[in-house]
Amino acid sequence: MNNSVENRRTIRKYTSEPVDEALLNELLATAMRTQTMGNLQLYSVVVTRDEEMKCRLSPCHFGQPMVTQAPVVLTICADFHRTTRWCQERQADPGYDNLLSFLNAASDALLFTQTFCNLAEERGLGICYLGTTIYQPQQIIDVLGLPELVMPVATLTVGWPDEEPALSDRLPLEALVHNETYKDYAREDIDRLYTPKEQLPENRNFVEINHKQTLAQVFTDLRYTRRDNEALSQVLIDTLRSQHFLSGD
Amino acid sequence: MNNSVENRRTIRKYTSEPVDEALLNELLATAMRTQTMGNLQLYSVVVTRDEEMKCRLSPCHFGQPMVTQAPVVLTICADFHRTTRWCQERQADPGYDNLLSFLNAASDALLFTQTFCNLAEERGLGICYLGTTIYQPQQIIDVLGLPELVMPVATLTVGWPDEEPALSDRLPLEALVHNETYKDYAREDIDRLYTPKEQLPENRNFVEINHKQTLAQVFTDLRYTRRDNEALSQVLIDTLRSQHFLSGD
Repeated sequence: MNNSVENRRTIRKYTSEPVDEALLNELLATAMRTQTMGNLQLYSVVVTRDEEMKCRLSPCHFGQPMVTQAPVVLTICADFHRTTRWCQERQADPGYDNLLSFLNAASDALLFTQTFCNLAEERGLGICYLGTTIYQPQQIIDVLGLPELVMPVATLTVGWPDEEPALSDRLPLEALVHNETYKDYAREDIDRLYTPKEQLPENRNFVEINHKQTLAQVFTDLRYTRRDNEALSQVLIDTLRSQHFLSGD
Repeated sequence: MNNSVENRRTIRKYTSEPVDEALLNELLATAMRTQTMGNLQLYSVVVTRDEEMKCRLSPCHFGQPMVTQAPVVLTICADFHRTTRWCQERQADPGYDNLLSFLNAASDALLFTQTFCNLAEERGLGICYLGTTIYQPQQIIDVLGLPELVMPVATLTVGWPDEEPALSDRLPLEALVHNETYKDYAREDIDRLYTPKEQLPENRNFVEINHKQTLAQVFTDLRYTRRDNEALSQVLIDTLRSQHFLSGD
């Protein structure tokens, strides 16, 4: 697996070959071995293969073409609903309508998601992880019919690769790893750690075509702006509340 | 990797053999290939090997013995601090002090965490994932010296296994997977999906020694109670606020 992780790329273009249901189920079942809080398995997966359903999900992800082009779309949800239903049928009083429980379930869901990605990529499948899932969660909830205490946290488009993009760059290990205590970043550290990334031709080009002075400005002014982040945070809070994950606030 | 995931167990007892630094760094570096939002790598890892630091972390995890017994403890943090420092040094206005940004960074951190687990377990290392990380985050922040916009989201104790516990049970695939839309759980579904789990000898014993009527009651009355969840949710909200991830609220 080492090798498939080292060489992984996000795949956004897929061949027309379908993803066999038996293979998909095998990968999902194996990924379910991932550790989970109290062995409660606080997540659900909604599998989308139907063309019409893909078209309905597409605007939830701002029309990114992978959603309709991929043979399979998986929406992975933090799910305390099933466990709550179990408690209700077993004379137990569930108390999972709160933010801690959301984060517990989201953790379970994301850990499962990543084992699935690692297993699927090892088998040669190509995956795109859609971070847009938490930007318009209410639309996804409506399309997939998610009940209270279920919140979408990740979407994967899955298929057989029809492209081989270049490996993306990463910061050096020392940028992310701290020994014993967190070592804050002085100006020289930022320069040393980020300059190689900033000098890559594709990143210099990215700055130029966007008419910015620095790569960081491309992120703050265009890709992930304060205005968007604050508006989407409010949507997130509203959706967590309407899904009953903030009922105590 | 399929095989190592299928056979994985949480390992809580370790031999005295150290975890070689080169191996640890290789696993961390490979896990850093995991997909990340905008290739920003919104996480940090604090490596604890020092005995005194393990002793200081121990109460943050309610004294669970793995923390002091394991050769290595990793605390994985959602981190928008480094990216914010980069923006500050590059004439860019960062706007990541909000809940959406926390969830984006937590997602990056958890996906990275799970690839690390998959890789480490494939190499024969044993891991325990400590869900307690988000129960007393402020203490961990104090011990590790985490600055604002850094929040611990996962802890792993890592070492060479000195036990081989039984494989834990899982719900059947149909309990977690929904086709096209979420199919809610009727009473019969709950019975069908949960009865095999409830009838396992270890779970029947668990109910008996705790003097409960049902397995679900062990969770709601003892392990994850409403009272604890609500109190810890408030702690979580307070800590997110003091780490500047809720400054817009």
